[in-house]
Amino acid sequence: MVEYADASAEVRAVYDDIMSSRKTDYINNFWKAMAHDPATLKRTWESIKQIMAPGALDPLTKEMIYLAVSASNQCGYCIASHTAAARKAGMTDAQFMELMAVVGMANETNRLVSGYQVEIDDRFKT
Amino acid sequence: MVEYADASAEVRAVYDDIMSSRKTDYINNFWKAMAHDPATLKRTWESIKQIMAPGALDPLTKEMIYLAVSASNQCGYCIASHTAAARKAGMTDAQFMELMAVVGMANETNRLVSGYQVEIDDRFKT
Amino acid sequence: MVEYADASAEVRAVYDDIMSSRKTDYINNFWKAMAHDPATLKRTWESIKQIMAPGALDPLTKEMIYLAVSASNQCGYCIASHTAAARKAGMTDAQFMELMAVVGMANETNRLVSGYQVEIDDRFKT
Amino acid sequence: MVEYADASAEVRAVYDDIMSSRKTDYINNFWKAMAHDPATLKRTWESIKQIMAPGALDPLTKEMIYLAVSASNQCGYCIASHTAAARKAGMTDAQFMELMAVVGMANETNRLVSGYQVEIDDRFKT
Amino acid sequence: MVEYADASAEVRAVYDDIMSSRKTDYINNFWKAMAHDPATLKRTWESIKQIMAPGALDPLTKEMIYLAVSASNQCGYCIASHTAAARKAGMTDAQFMELMAVVGMANETNRLVSGYQVEIDDRFKT
Amino acid sequence: MVEYADASAEVRAVYDDIMSSRKTDYINNFWKAMAHDPATLKRTWESIKQIMAPGALDPLTKEMIYLAVSASNQCGYCIASHTAAARKAGMTDAQFMELMAVVGMANETNRLVSGYQVEIDDRFKT
Repeated sequence: MVEYADASAEVRAVYDDIMSSRKTDYINNFWKAMAHDPATLKRTWESIKQIMAPGALDPLTKEMIYLAVSASNQCGYCIASHTAAARKAGMTDAQFMELMAVVGMANETNRLVSGYQVEIDDRFKT
Repeated sequence: MVEYADASAEVRAVYDDIMSSRKTDYINNFWKAMAHDPATLKRTWESIKQIMAPGALDPLTKEMIYLAVSASNQCGYCIASHTAAARKAGMTDAQFMELMAVVGMANETNRLVSGYQVEIDDRFKT
Repeated sequence: MVEYADASAEVRAVYDDIMSSRKTDYINNFWKAMAHDPATLKRTWESIKQIMAPGALDPLTKEMIYLAVSASNQCGYCIASHTAAARKAGMTDAQFMELMAVVGMANETNRLVSGYQVEIDDRFKT
Repeated sequence: MVEYADASAEVRAVYDDIMSSRKTDYINNFWKAMAHDPATLKRTWESIKQIMAPGALDPLTKEMIYLAVSASNQCGYCIASHTAAARKAGMTDAQFMELMAVVGMANETNRLVSGYQVEIDDRFKT
Repeated sequence: MVEYADASAEVRAVYDDIMSSRKTDYINNFWKAMAHDPATLKRTWESIKQIMAPGALDPLTKEMIYLAVSASNQCGYCIASHTAAARKAGMTDAQFMELMAVVGMANETNRLVSGYQVEIDDRFKT
Repeated sequence: MVEYADASAEVRAVYDDIMSSRKTDYINNFWKAMAHDPATLKRTWESIKQIMAPGALDPLTKEMIYLAVSASNQCGYCIASHTAAARKAGMTDAQFMELMAVVGMANETNRLVSGYQVEIDDRFKT
């Protein structure tokens, strides 16, 4: 992991932007691991900053979608870090439990549909 | 697939509840395929009705989470039907595109984290 | 796809063994696609023959497990071919519906467990 | 996690039913984590009780299918808890090893089929 | 799908760069579908262009890795388009078959390891 | 886990072949866990030996593909052991970081394609 003190100017510039954008003085282990590849660090951070910015969806909704996918994929690190991020963005206990219930049910019915070999209804075709 | 005209009273009761709850006269192929097992039909519908009801999260947010998981799992039927459901619940083109961007990025970083073998930051541990 | 008439002696030997082992005169598209790589064809067929043979688990149970995994992975071809194989091995409609119900529920709770970040109970540790 | 001593009457009723149905005095961490959402706890438990009850498939077969899906999904908690449950239902070492061999092979051929872009044989179409 | 003739200047600039970078006059359906969200189109294309450029790994190796992941994820579109791209980059029939064999085996052993609950050897820890 | 000292002649023969083929005196935990089922041990080892041997693809490329799939599937053990194997086969830091970048991007676009419901271009059809 690349610590700030040991980072190149290119990596520090990304770290600085992460900290100022997120109003924190903390850099996650994820970024420190990625910093061995400065081009990927810069590209990934700029993509995330663009994608997670307020837009047609608000930041809390975006964090909950990120968490939903991470829980569905069973990525331990991502679940831990995005649960923290969603909490910071305002997610309540009740919202978290409802979010997980939807994630669980979607995973259930995704497999039932496939297992039953259900054909797409004409009205759902684009 | 079990059509309404051929359905048992038990299955019809579920079909009726689906149609009245969703304010439609249409039963998806998914339910018709599941109706060969009335107990699973009744249990699954009642679970979905409970989970997708307005609560701490609004119906549009829930539909978008359902769609996010279905896109992440690459379930063709589920993507088609829940895109339609999310549209009906008010999802705009811009919201859909932002939703997919978050789903895509979450899938990317889930794998980067795992591949880099990143340990969970102490502050993210519960 | 490599048809029997066009196959090398090495491929024909595998095709012959598939047909005699399965008491059929039909070779699935899967094997015909794989036959472009005779070494993989031979190895995969011999592995499947060994794995799916009656042992501590009976052939129907093995076919249902194969189908459960294929439905969970949402592999359309595999679901279609292993549903046929399980039917041939004796799977009833009721068994199929119960199988799918277990597959669906396992997929649901797999994600709830991960999303809740549940630690393994000491008594479940090996 | 919600311990029995701290649980509401609603949660205790579910805990009591789990313990009496499973003939144990132990509540898994999974249920204790879910108990923050009593409606989800009650619904999930009742669904699992219904799905895992003896029917067209016996309880051991159902537990092995649950374990097959959990191993395929690589859910650590679920593998640990359902291996224990399958053992309790009578799974032998030999059955476990055959079960895993089928799970492994299904995961292999699921990807070969997709990678080869194999079309579904007419005879497998429903 | 957004055709070139109907595209905005921003979208056309990306289409032009795709065509000149790839030495083709063809734009895949993927890009045309994404063009409804010009910011995502531009970001995704620029990311892919950077990632797939010759570097420590040559373009054919990168295309085969892309195809390996797509086959493992069972994404039909991605398998079709990246098989074509890998062929264009020089992938032979023999390389394709060996690639698929590795993908299949990795998917098999990934599940065996998880199902057996194997602990990471000390020497493999980072 | 079955240690060499406690292993049957059949298991020892496989262990010996692993050690001589890989020029090492170390047997991974994976093989020791699998050795409870000697037939699966022998079959799996022989399959891997055949698949990973130099052929149309060189050993480093094969190890990187194995690692790409394992990272995509988020198998912790497999990522750790195949990172070590790829390093031993010559993978550099720069190659590892590019490999992960491709894996991440493939996982992202796999879901975008599915979520957008993109149809396969005629020219990509086989």
